[in-house]
Amino acid sequence: MSRIAYVNGAYVPHRAASVHIEDRGYQFADGVYEVVLVAGGRMIDTALHLARLARSLAEIRIPPPLCERALRLVLAEVARRNHVEEGLLYLQVTRGVARREHPFPKVPVRPALVVTARRGPGLPRDLARWAARAITAPDERWARCDIKTIGLLPNVLAKEAAVRRGAVEAILLARDGMVTEGASTNVWMVDAEGVLRTRRLGPEILPGCTRAALLEILAEAGLRFEERAVSAAELAAAREIFLTSATSYVRPIVEVDGAPVADGQVGPVARRLFDLFGAHVRGQR
Amino acid sequence: MSRIAYVNGAYVPHRAASVHIEDRGYQFADGVYEVVLVAGGRMIDTALHLARLARSLAEIRIPPPLCERALRLVLAEVARRNHVEEGLLYLQVTRGVARREHPFPKVPVRPALVVTARRGPGLPRDLARWAARAITAPDERWARCDIKTIGLLPNVLAKEAAVRRGAVEAILLARDGMVTEGASTNVWMVDAEGVLRTRRLGPEILPGCTRAALLEILAEAGLRFEERAVSAAELAAAREIFLTSATSYVRPIVEVDGAPVADGQVGPVARRLFDLFGAHVRGQR
Repeated sequence: MSRIAYVNGAYVPHRAASVHIEDRGYQFADGVYEVVLVAGGRMIDTALHLARLARSLAEIRIPPPLCERALRLVLAEVARRNHVEEGLLYLQVTRGVARREHPFPKVPVRPALVVTARRGPGLPRDLARWAARAITAPDERWARCDIKTIGLLPNVLAKEAAVRRGAVEAILLARDGMVTEGASTNVWMVDAEGVLRTRRLGPEILPGCTRAALLEILAEAGLRFEERAVSAAELAAAREIFLTSATSYVRPIVEVDGAPVADGQVGPVARRLFDLFGAHVRGQR
Repeated sequence: MSRIAYVNGAYVPHRAASVHIEDRGYQFADGVYEVVLVAGGRMIDTALHLARLARSLAEIRIPPPLCERALRLVLAEVARRNHVEEGLLYLQVTRGVARREHPFPKVPVRPALVVTARRGPGLPRDLARWAARAITAPDERWARCDIKTIGLLPNVLAKEAAVRRGAVEAILLARDGMVTEGASTNVWMVDAEGVLRTRRLGPEILPGCTRAALLEILAEAGLRFEERAVSAAELAAAREIFLTSATSYVRPIVEVDGAPVADGQVGPVARRLFDLFGAHVRGQR
């Protein structure tokens, strides 16, 4: 756990870091968050994360707690104070503290900002060991999954179901039988025809920053991909499946619901994208 | 605002009442809540609220923070310390404090319990003045609205949309065009044939305690009602519409989306139910 947290303007010992019980994040999930990868002492894809944060805040009409420049300084300072060279930064913004009423506070309050850091092992060296199992589960979330809100209970329940079955992720299936995304990752696959696919952005999925970075890398490298939804049947027939997120990087999925994906080994496309992502990360150091 | 709050075992001044930033309620909306009406110094429908709390907790597998008897004592003590004769008690239970990971904590942690109180004006005397406007809005919530979670951002956004249009409530319409409930109330109507209706319980709506109490009262009084969903078209043709909740009591809606409900006056069925609910409340004093 992080030793120093930033809470509403102050750097405080993590064990004593607290917010008021009537912070609207605690009573209404009225807030949004970001998780930023730190590698080689640098924040990765920061511009993408801060742009997404600004969009999430605008969508639910919370004013920015700090300008982008100040926010970058706070993130860097939290990383520095916690000696994070490899790990992650977590930041969350809520609408602030107000007497409990559903509508926005009549008299505007200051948004609350909390930042924590955690040290991690860095990008894995052995992709075969990083490969993992997934399950499929019904997507029970709300209609605006493009907003990165702290209202994560459906994600928590799906993830817990996965863990109980020895998996790391739940791949969520909408009522129309199509894959949306993972409980905390975007889902990619190489279909039976060899086409690399991931779902197009829309209200059903989070616009992943690692997803965005990878799509740009793929385009620059001249690699083919399609942004097109995947059905449960197509998922079952996939040559490769993998997940992306700031903390999953590119994570091969070699088993879904107990059945191996193709031959159950890490595939060449996942390996290629993992390498490209690694180079992208090193390029920002 | 309440002057004394109960937070994890202690009665503390409200202004200093805080929880850790890694309480899972703050990071994941991983918790549930109840709001209990206090009238004449007594808690109303307490057994219904505590049974619903137990069900909500069980559905997301949070162990009860206290046994029911102890919980009743805490609620009564918070009411007493805040001199609440007329008002409400708010209680929330979250999974507790743990290092941020989506799945439930591997080593179980103690659930967090927060209770606050607020004084209010008591049941309204003039039902015509209590009558209010509503809007309709798309129901964007998750698939398990029968669990009373603190993941209320969709409700907040719908309520804010209502307030901006001079209304007190957003009546939510599912994708199939049927009314589910209000952003923080159950919805009732008297249809064009004069039949009193409210939606049957299911995953789409919260099992309201005031709803349950009223249905029992109606059955005892031999009054006819149907638990049957209402379409947007039926809502527009309603003779009467009203809302119920612990803090709305029975609240007539006399205008929806700018159009009057029937003649725009409080109807006889809403008045009758309001009187029956008032007698129910006085009967518990």
